[in-house]
Amino acid sequence: MKFGRVIGSVVSTQKDANLVGVKLLVIQPLDRDLVPEGSAYIAADATGQAGYGQIVTVVFSADATQAFPLPQIPVDASIVGIVDDSTIDRSAEGRG
Amino acid sequence: MKFGRVIGSVVSTQKDANLVGVKLLVIQPLDRDLVPEGSAYIAADATGQAGYGQIVTVVFSADATQAFPLPQIPVDASIVGIVDDSTIDRSAEGRG
Amino acid sequence: MKFGRVIGSVVSTQKDANLVGVKLLVIQPLDRDLVPEGSAYIAADATGQAGYGQIVTVVFSADATQAFPLPQIPVDASIVGIVDDSTIDRSAEGRG
Amino acid sequence: MKFGRVIGSVVSTQKDANLVGVKLLVIQPLDRDLVPEGSAYIAADATGQAGYGQIVTVVFSADATQAFPLPQIPVDASIVGIVDDSTIDRSAEGRG
Amino acid sequence: MKFGRVIGSVVSTQKDANLVGVKLLVIQPLDRDLVPEGSAYIAADATGQAGYGQIVTVVFSADATQAFPLPQIPVDASIVGIVDDSTIDRSAEGRG
Repeated sequence: MKFGRVIGSVVSTQKDANLVGVKLLVIQPLDRDLVPEGSAYIAADATGQAGYGQIVTVVFSADATQAFPLPQIPVDASIVGIVDDSTIDRSAEGRG
Repeated sequence: MKFGRVIGSVVSTQKDANLVGVKLLVIQPLDRDLVPEGSAYIAADATGQAGYGQIVTVVFSADATQAFPLPQIPVDASIVGIVDDSTIDRSAEGRG
Repeated sequence: MKFGRVIGSVVSTQKDANLVGVKLLVIQPLDRDLVPEGSAYIAADATGQAGYGQIVTVVFSADATQAFPLPQIPVDASIVGIVDDSTIDRSAEGRG
Repeated sequence: MKFGRVIGSVVSTQKDANLVGVKLLVIQPLDRDLVPEGSAYIAADATGQAGYGQIVTVVFSADATQAFPLPQIPVDASIVGIVDDSTIDRSAEGRG
Repeated sequence: MKFGRVIGSVVSTQKDANLVGVKLLVIQPLDRDLVPEGSAYIAADATGQAGYGQIVTVVFSADATQAFPLPQIPVDASIVGIVDDSTIDRSAEGRG
C-alpha cells in the first residue's frame, strides 16, 4: 500500500458495467512524510467515505479488486482505509 | 487506473486466438492535468467505443482481463471508460 | 501490451518442467514510433512464429500465462501477436 | 522479495473489514547492502513479530495476499520473514 | 523474465510457514549483454540447483508462485532456469 491524498474525481458515463456505482477518485501519491511524490492516478473508493483532501491508504494491482465484493470489477487501485495517524520512528531508520 | 489518450491502432494478423475481434489501440498516458506523461502502450478497448483523440480510463495488469467476459484473454491494459470530465480540487492538494 | 523487437534467444537446459518446449526470446522494448526504449527482457513465444528482427506485441504479468493453454507455466512476458502495421494519428495527440 | 526496514506504523480506523487486526507498518526499502533505496510504502505484517528497526523480507503484488490465510485481504505488500543474516559473495558479482 | 546473477543468500528463521525449505537467493539483475543493471532483489530458487555466480532466468509477480507446486507460497520472484547460452543478433536490432 501507499499513502495518497484525494485531490479530484472522474466522471465517465460510458464505462464498464461493473464500474457503475463505483466512485473514482484522483489520488496524489505521498511519501512517508506525506509529501507529494510521483504522478497521480485514479482509484476506486472501497471505503465509500473518502473525501477531498483526506489521506488514505491505497492498494494496487490484483489486490485492488479484492477490496470489492464483486470479483469482476476491473480496478487496479483501491482506497482501503482513511489514515488517522502515521508514525515514523526516526531512530529506527538509522539502525544498522 | 490512469488517464490516457487514444492516439493510434495496431494491426496484427498472426495473434493469440483469444485476441481475434479485440480492438487494440495505442494509448499516450496523461497526468492529472491531462498532459502527456511517460511512454505509450497498447490497450484493448473493453468499451468498444473509444475513438482517436478521446480521453479514457485504462486499467492495468490482471485486472485488465476482468474487463472482458472471456477469462483467457491475454491483455494487461484495458480501456474501461471514456472520460466526460475530471475535476482536480487545488485546495485539497495543499492541505496537510 | 508493449511493442518489442525480437533480438535474441536463450538456451537453458536446467529449467522448470513446464517451460520445456517453450521458446524463450530476448525482446528489445520499442516506443510508439518503434524506436528502442528501455532494457531488454525475456519473453515466451505464444504465437510459435516470431522470428529475429520482427516487431511483436508482448503482454506482461499474470496475463502472460493466459497466452498458454497450461495454467502452471511460469512466464511473466509472452509474445501474443506479430505486428503488421501500427498507425499513430498525430492530430489526435494534440487535441485537448 | 525485497529487503526493507520497519520504520513506522499506520493508524486507520475507517478501513476495509478484512484489514481489521492486520498490523500495517511503514517500510523503507533497502538495497543488497541494506542501505536505504527508494521510497517508503506500507506493508502488512504476516509474521506478526516485526518490530521497529528490524530488517525484513517483503513480498509484493498478488503474492502478498498469499501470506495471509484469508484470500480476500486487500494487501499488496506483506512482511514474510525477519532477516537474521544476508551474505553477498563479492567474487560472484564479477564473474562473467 | 529477466536475466540475473546469483550473488548472495538470505537467512531468516522467523518466516512464513510456506517458505520453510525454500532457498532464498540475492539476485543482481543483468541487461541483455549480461551486464549488471538495477538493484538487487531476493528470489526463491525453483530449480533447486542455482549456485553463486550463475546466470539464471527469473520470473516475477504472481507467475513466480507458479514455479512451485504449493499455491500458497508467498514469493514474487523465482529462479526458473539456469542459462547455458544467450544469443543476441546484432543485425536484428537495427532492422526497421
